[in-house]
Amino acid sequence: MEEYLARISPADEAAMRAATERQLVLTKPAGSLGVLEELSVRVAGMTGTCPPAVPAPAVVTVFAADHGVHAQGVSPWPQEVTAAMLANFAAGGAAVNAFAANNRVDVRVVDVGPDLADTLVKDGYQCLLTGDMGIANTTASAALIATFTGSTADVVTGRGTGIDDAMLAHKTAIVQAALAMHAVPASEPLQALEAYGGLEHAALAGYILGGAANKVPVILDGVIAGAAALVAQAFHPAVIDYCVAGHRSAEPGHAVALKTLGLQPLVDLDLRLGEGTGAVLAYPILSCAVRALAEMATFESAGISS
Amino acid sequence: MEEYLARISPADEAAMRAATERQLVLTKPAGSLGVLEELSVRVAGMTGTCPPAVPAPAVVTVFAADHGVHAQGVSPWPQEVTAAMLANFAAGGAAVNAFAANNRVDVRVVDVGPDLADTLVKDGYQCLLTGDMGIANTTASAALIATFTGSTADVVTGRGTGIDDAMLAHKTAIVQAALAMHAVPASEPLQALEAYGGLEHAALAGYILGGAANKVPVILDGVIAGAAALVAQAFHPAVIDYCVAGHRSAEPGHAVALKTLGLQPLVDLDLRLGEGTGAVLAYPILSCAVRALAEMATFESAGISS
Repeated sequence: MEEYLARISPADEAAMRAATERQLVLTKPAGSLGVLEELSVRVAGMTGTCPPAVPAPAVVTVFAADHGVHAQGVSPWPQEVTAAMLANFAAGGAAVNAFAANNRVDVRVVDVGPDLADTLVKDGYQCLLTGDMGIANTTASAALIATFTGSTADVVTGRGTGIDDAMLAHKTAIVQAALAMHAVPASEPLQALEAYGGLEHAALAGYILGGAANKVPVILDGVIAGAAALVAQAFHPAVIDYCVAGHRSAEPGHAVALKTLGLQPLVDLDLRLGEGTGAVLAYPILSCAVRALAEMATFESAGISS
Repeated sequence: MEEYLARISPADEAAMRAATERQLVLTKPAGSLGVLEELSVRVAGMTGTCPPAVPAPAVVTVFAADHGVHAQGVSPWPQEVTAAMLANFAAGGAAVNAFAANNRVDVRVVDVGPDLADTLVKDGYQCLLTGDMGIANTTASAALIATFTGSTADVVTGRGTGIDDAMLAHKTAIVQAALAMHAVPASEPLQALEAYGGLEHAALAGYILGGAANKVPVILDGVIAGAAALVAQAFHPAVIDYCVAGHRSAEPGHAVALKTLGLQPLVDLDLRLGEGTGAVLAYPILSCAVRALAEMATFESAGISS
């Protein structure tokens, strides 16, 4: 962890300035590609080059873990579903497999385990996408998000896979009790991981920090990744320069997390599955933003008067 | 036109029911893929099969035209830019070229001209995307949208490529005067095209009707396509069963048009370029929705208790 923190630096200002200037001479009205223009400028800053290459190949890593809080009755699904879904990922039958095949993203599944970012970048991946799977992991995420955003349990706790009103009230009470018991301050990310985190939150925070240390874009999936990004941000604020919010989940804590992270989601389609599905949907949008910056003609090269 | 209208029928109910039922047994919480679940059901209805194949290959057709209303001073750009951009499309230097290359969509450019949908489907294209280029074409679109939605000129007229307050007031007055002069009722699409439309609006309306006649998904780009879709809808209401709103443009008339069309945009990122850029961004989302329906394991096949 110490090693990653020492390797993280803010986005490259000169590359961002060059990208901003280049956007003004490409053959389109200034600003007409909206959020994609800013996105291409951010990737220039992450990689320190202008125009940056399309960040490919890309990999979505699905971090999976069991959760002790499951025993408190916060989910209608048995914990065994987590293990069964790992087999489904391996067999290629999950939603993230279908999306990733379509968008040319490789899938890796990690049953908890050590951080991987350095290895993946050494393997050639230029874009890291987050994924997660773990019955009861929205409960742990709610406690982490409350800790780092200063929100109360009722604001950040949601229906996860789709629980009823009674189970939601129970789940909110569990989160509230955990926050009262541990009372971890926002300045103590390691303590927060120990108190509330699933093992995949710890692994995801390391993955995000590792992406930033390697200066590659990290596309965050939904609420689990948002919670882990808040942890990573508490370790090193510049990590957010390398994060892109893939989508906004229907889980209420996610919007709260994104606001504190200062990230705008690229896709907003009521997804609440996890697995990295939202991040994989956003990858072609990121690639298009980068590709326009690199490949579009300028007014001068196209012979159009500006 | 008469031939297309006779060939258009509503989406296939049986295929939609089968897709809705299939969504319930795929390995995910019901509803967790949000808007993408409904999207896959709609494509099943368009093609009359469940699960439908991924609609590939895809083509974005950029319809380009000059506009007489340009002489009224509604745009800061000279009309020659339209022709210069056609050369830019051909050279591969426009934003739509960069996006389309990334998302495996072919690009065709049509300098006005006859409708193409039948030919493209005969060529093997399974998904038709709309694009457009024409300095001053947001002015014509505003008049068409006002006609078919019952809105006033000030609600549907916007800044297009980015005009100042004075030019916006002038542009709005031009639209208002045209509406007052022609007063075309919403039941007369051909008359509306003659009174207000650019030639690309006529071509786009034919392209959309042709997509519906061939039972392939038509991904609409922004405000120009929205205006043309309103024209197509006035010719045959079932045409909307085959339309997907690629994105929501920053142009104010587009949201008004989408509301009347009853379509929810897949991407909402402040784009206001046209060319088909928003439609091309949405194509991988449509493909992922279809692919999940076809390729995901069911709870039964994955051995997970539901």
